[in-house]
Amino acid sequence: MRPKVIVNCAMSADGKIAGRDRRQLRISSDEDIKRVKRLRLDSDAIMVGVGTVLADDPHLTVKGLPPGKGPLRVVVDSNGRTPADAKVLDPRAGTLLFHAEGTSPPPDADSFACGEGRVDLRAAMEELGRRGVATVMVEGGGELIASLFEDGLVDEYLVFVGPLMIGGSGAPSPVDGEGRDGVDALRLRFMGHERLGDGVLLRYAVEHTPEKERA
Amino acid sequence: MRPKVIVNCAMSADGKIAGRDRRQLRISSDEDIKRVKRLRLDSDAIMVGVGTVLADDPHLTVKGLPPGKGPLRVVVDSNGRTPADAKVLDPRAGTLLFHAEGTSPPPDADSFACGEGRVDLRAAMEELGRRGVATVMVEGGGELIASLFEDGLVDEYLVFVGPLMIGGSGAPSPVDGEGRDGVDALRLRFMGHERLGDGVLLRYAVEHTPEKERA
Repeated sequence: MRPKVIVNCAMSADGKIAGRDRRQLRISSDEDIKRVKRLRLDSDAIMVGVGTVLADDPHLTVKGLPPGKGPLRVVVDSNGRTPADAKVLDPRAGTLLFHAEGTSPPPDADSFACGEGRVDLRAAMEELGRRGVATVMVEGGGELIASLFEDGLVDEYLVFVGPLMIGGSGAPSPVDGEGRDGVDALRLRFMGHERLGDGVLLRYAVEHTPEKERA
Repeated sequence: MRPKVIVNCAMSADGKIAGRDRRQLRISSDEDIKRVKRLRLDSDAIMVGVGTVLADDPHLTVKGLPPGKGPLRVVVDSNGRTPADAKVLDPRAGTLLFHAEGTSPPPDADSFACGEGRVDLRAAMEELGRRGVATVMVEGGGELIASLFEDGLVDEYLVFVGPLMIGGSGAPSPVDGEGRDGVDALRLRFMGHERLGDGVLLRYAVEHTPEKERA
């Protein structure tokens, strides 16, 4: 059984997750950061793309937990580019790297090959399910999130909108990738909103067509 | 005295105003469309960039008003590219074209030259003030809005977030242009939010530094 996939992100009031320099930027309010921490604790796995690892070198751990506890950290890394000294590979929690067949992730890391050329995300989710993961929180970046949407693997999309104006036609957005024409836009089900400090959290569900339902 | 400038737009849940095809896309709910109509009626002028005229050929009129009534339609058109048969030039309401010095807008259109190479937006706003315009609503596109922000001319930013997922690193966003690095992001003052159908309207004010205050 595939896990439930919750995409969580924070964007500016003009729909950006970072500036043109692509460096990590705090957009969330204190209240939203508390919510994200709770969501991490409630998740069995936290997933990011390798681009996020290379750009931000995040720990992906939950502060205050003893070493080895906390959600499984998952990196989607088609070409095995995660550096051996990446913080996501430290011993503070477990980590699993998904990579494409024939590529070489760091040898000491727990890794799983699926897909040719790029990671087969559906197979990756199935592997996570086999490992007992019922809920995956996806934290970025925009390319991974776009691929998950295109593969029909997202169940919920949560976005905090913070009071920043960044601008820029090339700035990273929550969902990048190739994108869709307007007529092909995916209609989400609006689940509600919540003010969190100086921003608003918006919650959406993705309604799957029968053949895309979790099985 | 410069008019109050209110930027109004609608974006998808992932921060896009259109798909990769850049064609006009309805993102607003019925309730938001009613709000936008009221905002148009309450404004003395409705401003767009020439890119919006060329892409969407909008009327920029308010339905139900007699011909010649309604807010002044304003096009920022640095190089005089507005076609003579553009709907924004029809007789249903007044229209003013701002263009750069030395360029030639359609000869029958009411036009005003200011700025070299590109329209001097501050001078344009001052001209609107001289013509009795106290409130300007800006409807797009992302390049004009970016320039207005960079020139410190925006007073309020209103964005409706609709339940669509579009994706695409090249899709148009509410504020395009060159953009800023994350550390230089403009912090807005969050003024509140309102649910309108299946989306949420977010309201922000731009706090001007003293030298940028309207005078």
